[in-house]
Amino acid sequence: MSADLERVGQAAKNAAVSAAKLTAAEKDRVLNQCAEALESNSEHILKENNCDLESAEGIKESFRDRLRLSASRVKSMADGLRQVAALPDPTNEAVSMKNLPNGLAVIQKRVPMGVIAVIYEARPNVTADAFGLCFKAGSSVILRGGKEAIRSNTAIAQVFRDVLAANGLNPDMVQIMTDTSHETARKLMRLNGYIDLLIPRGGAGLIRSAVENSSIPVIETGVGNCHIFMDESADINKAVPIIINAKTQRPGVCNAVEKLLIHERIAAEYLPVIAAALREKGVELRGDKRAVSLVPDVIPAAEEDWHAEYADLIIAIKVVADIDEAIEHIRTYSSNHSEAVITENYTNAQRFLNEVDSAAVYVNASTRFTDGGEFGFGAEIGISTQKLHARGPMGLKELTSTKYIIYGNGQIRL
Amino acid sequence: MSADLERVGQAAKNAAVSAAKLTAAEKDRVLNQCAEALESNSEHILKENNCDLESAEGIKESFRDRLRLSASRVKSMADGLRQVAALPDPTNEAVSMKNLPNGLAVIQKRVPMGVIAVIYEARPNVTADAFGLCFKAGSSVILRGGKEAIRSNTAIAQVFRDVLAANGLNPDMVQIMTDTSHETARKLMRLNGYIDLLIPRGGAGLIRSAVENSSIPVIETGVGNCHIFMDESADINKAVPIIINAKTQRPGVCNAVEKLLIHERIAAEYLPVIAAALREKGVELRGDKRAVSLVPDVIPAAEEDWHAEYADLIIAIKVVADIDEAIEHIRTYSSNHSEAVITENYTNAQRFLNEVDSAAVYVNASTRFTDGGEFGFGAEIGISTQKLHARGPMGLKELTSTKYIIYGNGQIRL
Repeated sequence: MSADLERVGQAAKNAAVSAAKLTAAEKDRVLNQCAEALESNSEHILKENNCDLESAEGIKESFRDRLRLSASRVKSMADGLRQVAALPDPTNEAVSMKNLPNGLAVIQKRVPMGVIAVIYEARPNVTADAFGLCFKAGSSVILRGGKEAIRSNTAIAQVFRDVLAANGLNPDMVQIMTDTSHETARKLMRLNGYIDLLIPRGGAGLIRSAVENSSIPVIETGVGNCHIFMDESADINKAVPIIINAKTQRPGVCNAVEKLLIHERIAAEYLPVIAAALREKGVELRGDKRAVSLVPDVIPAAEEDWHAEYADLIIAIKVVADIDEAIEHIRTYSSNHSEAVITENYTNAQRFLNEVDSAAVYVNASTRFTDGGEFGFGAEIGISTQKLHARGPMGLKELTSTKYIIYGNGQIRL
Repeated sequence: MSADLERVGQAAKNAAVSAAKLTAAEKDRVLNQCAEALESNSEHILKENNCDLESAEGIKESFRDRLRLSASRVKSMADGLRQVAALPDPTNEAVSMKNLPNGLAVIQKRVPMGVIAVIYEARPNVTADAFGLCFKAGSSVILRGGKEAIRSNTAIAQVFRDVLAANGLNPDMVQIMTDTSHETARKLMRLNGYIDLLIPRGGAGLIRSAVENSSIPVIETGVGNCHIFMDESADINKAVPIIINAKTQRPGVCNAVEKLLIHERIAAEYLPVIAAALREKGVELRGDKRAVSLVPDVIPAAEEDWHAEYADLIIAIKVVADIDEAIEHIRTYSSNHSEAVITENYTNAQRFLNEVDSAAVYVNASTRFTDGGEFGFGAEIGISTQKLHARGPMGLKELTSTKYIIYGNGQIRL
């Protein structure tokens, strides 16, 4: 363990002790001040962001776009902090309470996680989002953003540190790792004893690296190979808008649909209609042999297509014999993020909901709804695709832990 | 990934699909049949256990005792299964339900974990306990016990597999790993995509190995360096029985107390009384300089004593200036399992409960209560000392996950 990293970990652990003691009112006041301070330091942040953009010449435009800040993006970050301030404090509620026969009162209480580390890529807005949520949840946070965004991230975090210090609070409640090497990231992933939770936010490679290398508990987020199964009894008037919405409303995100499975009894009639609607939105169509035979301009799909998260205007289509084959296909290839069935058949709707083992399973609705904001959580830190601790959109509650507190009166165990 | 292990993983995954579909009544019937079958196969199990004991010559007696079965221990395992059968099914309850403004009904539902792996050491009863809990929770389980218990474990698991098969169910809902090498255990810990949760049950070395090597989500269980802080206002009539109970009622378990912190203002008066009571129970006393000076036969403690989980009739005593020093000491050395304060001071009781960051924090009660049975869970798979997913005694609910199911009516995201 490197001494520098241990210092960061120890500082975060000390700050977590103070963070856990803050009242909801204190936290909300600080968050609102941080929002103000972001806006009043907008010019400086944009200047630093510009330096990042200049250093990052030669990178592709989509990456540049994620890295780029503007006055309105800074304002969005500030508004995000204000929204988090307005949410209820997730800590200190009783999850359960019971009196044992011997008179002990056992209360399971929601408490802060402690120290949370977030490893992310190009988006500087994650710096503000992650700080806001972790701070509101009573934890300190160690942020390790991508090297391309280091000046932007440092400027944003410094704004928060200054506000914390001005309030007499420990600024180490938020720390930015300025060493952005992969080696240091891997060491951070093994800082047991200091960090309670690691959240990787980014592409599949980053997530995989965290899952494989971390000895700290990780929450796996965000990879979405989402499916829609159009059952024999599907209503075409629901199916077309749902498929178009799930594929094209925002194709780059993890809850966009990537695969369409269609029942063989309706494929000949409906697939041409759906293909035409998708094509009109500029979607590239790939498919299995039967899809290709029904819609001539469908490109033959390879095995890797069924595994792929395109995050782009591409969809792969497979004609299936029945709901069993659809569920089996999803079981084999899905990343278990979000799947939908379009059906008017009650039994098939229930079977799909019960047997598809994904974080969010829909009947007759777009997969695009898998989102903390849409689910009414107010904000989200990511979408968990694992089964431990949190599954699906993670709001403030998912950033907390619990502990048992027990009020006794001299009880001993017999 | 080895082909053999992948086969085990795939078989468990297939069995998990069937396990998740079982009704509570079906599971309870199978569990009761398994209990009967354990008893009727007692002779065979004891014969196999005897072979294990003969092969294990030369091991120390405490280990031998954990390995040894008897007719009454087999009956205890059977009774354990009957108790689990009598508990409510933890799956299929709604954790939350809400209707979004657009009419979507979003239900967070408790669902089985999927595939659970349990790695354990010498105790063959874990084979029955872990199967019973995982099966009741709707998951399949891969069991990897210690090599010394392989014949006992195989015999017990075969009883369950036969009952499953006789009920027309997939026997792979419980699998025993017959390859008990450390290398295979480490590979098992990296069987992502097949296993959803790994629970190590055993000594500190096993737990550490799982935390460091596993790429599957782990729940860290059971290491207990537990503290009692005797505050200035402590009632000696509560303190002595609590300390004696916490140290001596069952010294080998993780919720036994290992350290006594005592306020300096009462140390001279009470430490000799407590030391005499402990000595009478055969407890070896270690302590810091001040404890040694107050009670002459206290052995000076070394730095490693403050970190140690003795799991034996030993206690280390430290005289502290106040509650701040006590909390700080616990923060530095505790394994965050269970801690207790003995005090009559309201404010100090509240501070201790709020500021000590352990799975279970007590006022005026023995640490020995941290136990699924005592907390009324009916059974436990272990005691989590981590903050993710579960903390403290883990019952059936802690062996489940959740998913969102969403009932729509053609909704698309705007």
